[in-house]
Amino acid sequence: MTESLEPPPHMSTEEFRQAGYATIDWLVNHMEGVDQRPVTPPTQPGDVRAALPDAAPQTGEPFGDLLADMDRIITPHLTQWQHPGFYGYFPANSSPPAVLGELLSAGLGVQGMLWSTGPAITELETHLLDWMIDLCGLPEKFLSTGPGGGVIQDSASSATLCAILAARHRAGGASVLPRLRAYTSAQAHSSAEKGCLVAGLASDQLRLIDTDKNFAMNPQALAEAIAQDQADGLVPFFVMATVGTTSSGAVDPLPKIAPLAKAAGAWLHVDAAWAGSAGVCPEYREIFTGLDQADSYVFNPHKWLLTNFDCSLFWVADAGPLTEALSIVPEYLRNPASEAGAVIDYRDWQVPLGRRFRSLKLWFVLRSYGVEGLQAHIRNHVAAAQDLAKQVAQHPQLELAAPPTLALVCFRHLDGDQASEDLLQALNATGEVLLTHTKLNDRYVLRVAVGATQTTQSHVQHLMDLIKELLDA
Amino acid sequence: MTESLEPPPHMSTEEFRQAGYATIDWLVNHMEGVDQRPVTPPTQPGDVRAALPDAAPQTGEPFGDLLADMDRIITPHLTQWQHPGFYGYFPANSSPPAVLGELLSAGLGVQGMLWSTGPAITELETHLLDWMIDLCGLPEKFLSTGPGGGVIQDSASSATLCAILAARHRAGGASVLPRLRAYTSAQAHSSAEKGCLVAGLASDQLRLIDTDKNFAMNPQALAEAIAQDQADGLVPFFVMATVGTTSSGAVDPLPKIAPLAKAAGAWLHVDAAWAGSAGVCPEYREIFTGLDQADSYVFNPHKWLLTNFDCSLFWVADAGPLTEALSIVPEYLRNPASEAGAVIDYRDWQVPLGRRFRSLKLWFVLRSYGVEGLQAHIRNHVAAAQDLAKQVAQHPQLELAAPPTLALVCFRHLDGDQASEDLLQALNATGEVLLTHTKLNDRYVLRVAVGATQTTQSHVQHLMDLIKELLDA
Repeated sequence: MTESLEPPPHMSTEEFRQAGYATIDWLVNHMEGVDQRPVTPPTQPGDVRAALPDAAPQTGEPFGDLLADMDRIITPHLTQWQHPGFYGYFPANSSPPAVLGELLSAGLGVQGMLWSTGPAITELETHLLDWMIDLCGLPEKFLSTGPGGGVIQDSASSATLCAILAARHRAGGASVLPRLRAYTSAQAHSSAEKGCLVAGLASDQLRLIDTDKNFAMNPQALAEAIAQDQADGLVPFFVMATVGTTSSGAVDPLPKIAPLAKAAGAWLHVDAAWAGSAGVCPEYREIFTGLDQADSYVFNPHKWLLTNFDCSLFWVADAGPLTEALSIVPEYLRNPASEAGAVIDYRDWQVPLGRRFRSLKLWFVLRSYGVEGLQAHIRNHVAAAQDLAKQVAQHPQLELAAPPTLALVCFRHLDGDQASEDLLQALNATGEVLLTHTKLNDRYVLRVAVGATQTTQSHVQHLMDLIKELLDA
Repeated sequence: MTESLEPPPHMSTEEFRQAGYATIDWLVNHMEGVDQRPVTPPTQPGDVRAALPDAAPQTGEPFGDLLADMDRIITPHLTQWQHPGFYGYFPANSSPPAVLGELLSAGLGVQGMLWSTGPAITELETHLLDWMIDLCGLPEKFLSTGPGGGVIQDSASSATLCAILAARHRAGGASVLPRLRAYTSAQAHSSAEKGCLVAGLASDQLRLIDTDKNFAMNPQALAEAIAQDQADGLVPFFVMATVGTTSSGAVDPLPKIAPLAKAAGAWLHVDAAWAGSAGVCPEYREIFTGLDQADSYVFNPHKWLLTNFDCSLFWVADAGPLTEALSIVPEYLRNPASEAGAVIDYRDWQVPLGRRFRSLKLWFVLRSYGVEGLQAHIRNHVAAAQDLAKQVAQHPQLELAAPPTLALVCFRHLDGDQASEDLLQALNATGEVLLTHTKLNDRYVLRVAVGATQTTQSHVQHLMDLIKELLDA
């Protein structure tokens, strides 16, 4: 028994150095070869589990075996989100400085639930969220120097949930819950519906407002829904507008929506999870007009700003309702800095208690690329997508299904849904590209979300060439 | 304009290799010196922000500058959770294989919201959660081969929220919400209260049940509260029991609580966020007796099982209510594998949509340490803590404030709260250790949570020596 009271054999720091170098080398190899892999793996359900033993090993295995199993069991069964031919969903950006920022975060092994549990974790995060306001031309009301401020969440889903919780609190909380009504467009992301469900609303308490021919929220329909609910004695408490919907990149008309929300006393949350990254380029900021009237805003650098998932930026104009909705202070978390009110404790800005040092990777990205590098990243993709849209529109067998927004192009086959679906499957079967689909006006639509870190205009041209080839065949 | 349409200058893979090596070297340096730093930094609010420029740079900066600023701005202002003298809160374990698993996850840059968006992400996770059942002696009802299964969440707070949402759904959802009542002990973690608030319950819908002299839930008091609520026409829907409370490590009596929950039709969730890691040692499994009657269970390898935050393991005996409560399927996420029902889509097991490849770090830990290494890690800390408890109990100026559980020791100064608080502050002021406090029976209590990765019995003895010195002075 005495022997078992020794600590376990940890890697020495020198062994860690060698294993770390080997891991970096493995990643270099992977990065150099990722464009030679199929974007979508040929995996069938159960393939991966079949390659894994039934139980954890009794004694430790050498590190080299782990890397070998990465090659044998893991990488062949991954969808390659970092492949330059990845056009599915929205991109999940990654970049070398972000990866190394994440490595440092893991290596430091610190935890920022409170300012006092790691002051640099909180202060760097607050500071960068202020930087982003300048960088993206966001309203100054979101600066931490006023009653508002920003925080990093894991996802836009979680940020939207927090916005709903703050709005629910401001509207009176649990006691008025059954009378509350929320509004978003029928094209909004499913996270609005999920957030409302989590917050205890029944499904009919979220109104899905009709959209116009470009799939943007119809403000007249919103006005009517609010008026009807008010006439019925219900309480409009939350409106979510989207800048860049998932299906088609539609932009809800904030200047018309905001006054309606305000007049009803409802919280206005703006979801620009994907499109928000384009704010780094002044020439694309018109779609954000009216954002200065929002109560909260979310966008995800992990989608299109070279920063690894998870990095979702969430701002509120007034942190009061948010922290009042989420703050619970047990004795074991009390500390002088918090009691003095001199600091931000981010645990009160989110659902989880613990939090990683996520701002490091964003800091590394902002400093490694600089404003100009980030702008080039966005502009290159927008130009490529707009060029693709032009070619699609001119193709005799295709038509655009919605006006292209930024770097998202939606189109369909003129012969109908089956032809569109066949084209998507044929494209994906090449292994060179991955597209996903949606439905617009109940018709099957192919989506091309240009935005993977390595995707250049020549890759997008290759996609167009593939489309032409397959249509000719 | 043509020039700006080039992609940004990314690090080449060769530059990434060099920057990666440099980052590993930086971490080796940091790890070798962490025990020479003060556990708690001398930071005042605003110190970090004052060292940061007001805006992001216009052009990219060399990677070396970033690492230099880590030394200059970040590390001196961190609470060193990986210091062997860290005894605060509960530990946040980190280990070399976990750090490298996290590096691989970041470098791969993949996203596991659906099975089809990265089959290996989902299958490795499911498989490891099954491994853990064997490793920790957990009930087989949690195996993925039946109606239940496990998932990795970011934190126990999020897992507990999911348990509440599943329970709420099973009880009838939003329509019965005002009549629902939840129960946990007055010593339970604040995440129970936060989860209930998020889910739309008013604060009086969560009953905080009295505890016995050892701070464990009094089952008689639970029975009475449930009976009273039922008599009042209310619906008991959720009971959370804790194995190893945050304040004192108390263990709620599952064998007595479980039948009460079952008879009332309430969901039984067991929170062993910290203590769960001890399940790797058969000799500590007695405290989990009765877990086979739970509907869900959570514990955090990121606390005490050498795996970096975030890694919180959550199992349900029946995934039905959970996924029914959380599943929303928009068109753009539909895919053949999901439609066929042949796979798990973990987005339906959590609040966020997106998810990192978190199982890699757990896999690397399990394989690098093996069962025996993990057991040695736990046993070494338990032995050290029990030895500390013995010395504290024998000290003429100190007394234990609760029976020590596993590696958590709670004690106080016999001269009262001020003397206890003075002792804690004097200990922390040495910079060699960090302790945090709680209140038990309304008295100030020092907590020693032994469990940091590098903490050995000699470090704990050094803490005892420091205590003695300070009391003698």
